[in-house]
Amino acid sequence: MWFQCSTFSFTFFIHALCCFVTTMGYEYKMKTFDALIDHFSFSSQETFPLRYAVNDSYWKGDGGPVFFYTGNEGTIELFIENTGFIWEAAPDFNALIVFAEHRYYGKSLPFGNDSFSSPNKTGYLTSLQAIADFVDLIQFLKANVSGARNSPFIAIGGSYGGMLSAWFKMKYPHIIAGAIASSAPIWQFAGMNPCNTFAKTVTADFTRESPECSNSIRRSWKAIDNVTASDEGRSWLSDSWRLCEHLAGDGAALKEWLSEIYEDLAMMNFPYAAKFHHSLPAYPIKAVCSHLTDSSLPDRQLLDSLFRAVSVYFNHTGDARCLDTDVAHLYADLGTDGWDYQTCTEVVQGMCQDGVEDMFEPYSFDFASYSDSCYSRWGVRPSLSEGINLYGGRDISTAANIVLTNGLLDPWSGLGVLRNVSETAVALVMPDTPHHLDLRASNPADPASVRRVREILRESIGRWAAEHRAALSE
Amino acid sequence: MWFQCSTFSFTFFIHALCCFVTTMGYEYKMKTFDALIDHFSFSSQETFPLRYAVNDSYWKGDGGPVFFYTGNEGTIELFIENTGFIWEAAPDFNALIVFAEHRYYGKSLPFGNDSFSSPNKTGYLTSLQAIADFVDLIQFLKANVSGARNSPFIAIGGSYGGMLSAWFKMKYPHIIAGAIASSAPIWQFAGMNPCNTFAKTVTADFTRESPECSNSIRRSWKAIDNVTASDEGRSWLSDSWRLCEHLAGDGAALKEWLSEIYEDLAMMNFPYAAKFHHSLPAYPIKAVCSHLTDSSLPDRQLLDSLFRAVSVYFNHTGDARCLDTDVAHLYADLGTDGWDYQTCTEVVQGMCQDGVEDMFEPYSFDFASYSDSCYSRWGVRPSLSEGINLYGGRDISTAANIVLTNGLLDPWSGLGVLRNVSETAVALVMPDTPHHLDLRASNPADPASVRRVREILRESIGRWAAEHRAALSE
Repeated sequence: MWFQCSTFSFTFFIHALCCFVTTMGYEYKMKTFDALIDHFSFSSQETFPLRYAVNDSYWKGDGGPVFFYTGNEGTIELFIENTGFIWEAAPDFNALIVFAEHRYYGKSLPFGNDSFSSPNKTGYLTSLQAIADFVDLIQFLKANVSGARNSPFIAIGGSYGGMLSAWFKMKYPHIIAGAIASSAPIWQFAGMNPCNTFAKTVTADFTRESPECSNSIRRSWKAIDNVTASDEGRSWLSDSWRLCEHLAGDGAALKEWLSEIYEDLAMMNFPYAAKFHHSLPAYPIKAVCSHLTDSSLPDRQLLDSLFRAVSVYFNHTGDARCLDTDVAHLYADLGTDGWDYQTCTEVVQGMCQDGVEDMFEPYSFDFASYSDSCYSRWGVRPSLSEGINLYGGRDISTAANIVLTNGLLDPWSGLGVLRNVSETAVALVMPDTPHHLDLRASNPADPASVRRVREILRESIGRWAAEHRAALSE
Repeated sequence: MWFQCSTFSFTFFIHALCCFVTTMGYEYKMKTFDALIDHFSFSSQETFPLRYAVNDSYWKGDGGPVFFYTGNEGTIELFIENTGFIWEAAPDFNALIVFAEHRYYGKSLPFGNDSFSSPNKTGYLTSLQAIADFVDLIQFLKANVSGARNSPFIAIGGSYGGMLSAWFKMKYPHIIAGAIASSAPIWQFAGMNPCNTFAKTVTADFTRESPECSNSIRRSWKAIDNVTASDEGRSWLSDSWRLCEHLAGDGAALKEWLSEIYEDLAMMNFPYAAKFHHSLPAYPIKAVCSHLTDSSLPDRQLLDSLFRAVSVYFNHTGDARCLDTDVAHLYADLGTDGWDYQTCTEVVQGMCQDGVEDMFEPYSFDFASYSDSCYSRWGVRPSLSEGINLYGGRDISTAANIVLTNGLLDPWSGLGVLRNVSETAVALVMPDTPHHLDLRASNPADPASVRRVREILRESIGRWAAEHRAALSE
């Protein structure tokens, strides 16, 4: 069933319509909550306005479930738009819908525009502080939303938001009845997996279309080096690739951009045209690979075909006047400052590439130089142990009432949970889906696996809500 | 079996004897660990020296268990001296013994002598920051003690230290294999129990000796008021009670001191002479009550008998030159500043007395004025919800591998866990013991219940260690 935006009913809206916002047909009221900047000391009781969106059009005010999206590294609107599962399931549960923005992203800036100005201001950007915001917001909602005092709260999140929803349930099992963690790579911490796990899955996604596709990409790095070795070659590449900025030095920036978009394509390889942070056609890797059929082409011909291939990414709409290779511009809606800081503190990814098992340029992760670059940018040094010490790594057998979903085409899946960790903290694996497809709105093109997973998610929500009600009446 | 200090073997001590300290026959090496002042932000990476004591005389360096005492509100020596169970059990497990001091107590002061000088310095005194110290200390020990990398760490604590060991296991289930929480009132938070629960148990302990005993105390408040209403009465009371300071105003300070010592007697009503923070004879309540046999005596005769009764407390040794009613002097080894701060932030006790169900002067807890007094002293206001939000209150069914012990004569027991909360987080109840008797050294006078509990504690440690080893070899 394709979700019909027009079927939304606003009859039960109890607030003035003036305050509602509509995004992609989803209507909600944007509010703020005074969140403590520091939840874990009493040194200061300063607060900041944390944004959250609410929709109560299905809410009966009788203790029904609250679907609580644990916002991740971006403006909350991005997740409101791309988590159709919540909007489709809410009517069936008479659920209140809440999307909470993550501190230091979107407009939830603890120190306003100065939030990233110095280490002592940025230091409160941690996953646990964000989860503590959610704890307090839930207490606030219980106290202030009529009929929610005894509601089961269901944490729902995708990607880093899924990591948060899983960790939320583990660290505060009493606050939420259950958690859905979609494509949540909670086992991504340094040392937990081979460092090229991510790169291998990206490569496999391209090889799956054709070995010539990933081979063409693997060959292209050297081709770019060869071509950009001369002024003439740089001019040729700048012109034929319609680069917004003429290549001045080597092709490093271009190669970085290419690496990024291959990773993004692997994540967003949805079976239908979609826009997460970027508009893409259905099965974009298939479209990319349709241009990469002969890896033995001479350098310039190979790069000609690669340009046609990557046009699928940067110019799917046909509106791009030139190719902008600034990686920072790829993720306008995502908080790149914030995420860079988080990867420089507790979420050290430490990825590598070898160019053999994967199609990327060989790259070794050097913690010492990474740490230096973090220190130079943020005045902090990353911790390799913090994430595991805090959240347990693979030793999470006391986790309960969590469903962790992963699609095996998603490069993050290899860093996620693919086996049950306890009786009620279970893994659902979809062999044929990319990044958090299950949390998106339903679509006729969805594979059967994702449809089945959504059924199980609904069953889980129903069971958690029933258990919560049963515990209340004990 | 009475524990023989002389049976300690120092053969295996691998460090120079110069560094060892002996307290009550227990030998250990005192060390420090650089602990982060703030574990939950990256704003500052400042550290302070956290003290911990180590004894490795039974340690074989082969991955055996580590008994890790989660220090509470006092200098760590106090708990080293009063937790004989650890010293007695360690040889049987070839265990490494570690006693970790709690931040802001003893000599583990994050800002040295300024630690209590301003709200922004005192603010890092929280239970979760203390637990995070323990997490990091354990990682440090795993990395630096030969043979401990894969050891099962067993958290052990009594009273507030027991709360910490239970919370430690709940919040960081992956760091420790199991936890023993003796006399840990983790359900003491405001609103969880009738506010006079504590006072009622204290009273019952006196009534158990004889109803005349608690009735005499119940009557004594008015007798003190009557006597101290006149200059002559105050002089009489000051002289006959040998007060260090002549009573100037009403008897309020004296009454506060009396209330405190009744509570202390109920906690420390051990079946043998002991010194926790104060020297007391065996069964001190019995000794006190032997002087309080007629509650119908006229005021001055009642107070004469009460003086003989409380002499059991303040002058058990016969060395006291006068009676010092300064409550702060009662708990010299305990960090009264620190604990006062903690009860003004996250551990709001909110106790009351009614003089009917209990033997105390009626007293209502008024949160607003309590909050004002906290603000005036510390610049912070207490939170009624923090402790429950953080640790779950009664909703802790995901807790695992914890044994929670309570003696029903302990006034804290009514605020502790007296029923199993999950399959492996279990409650052991001793009908006839006071505060954390089970963690003390064994004594011929111990009741059978405490002997049986200690057996179960040992069985639990053995099982947790075996489970830990089994998980490692999976």
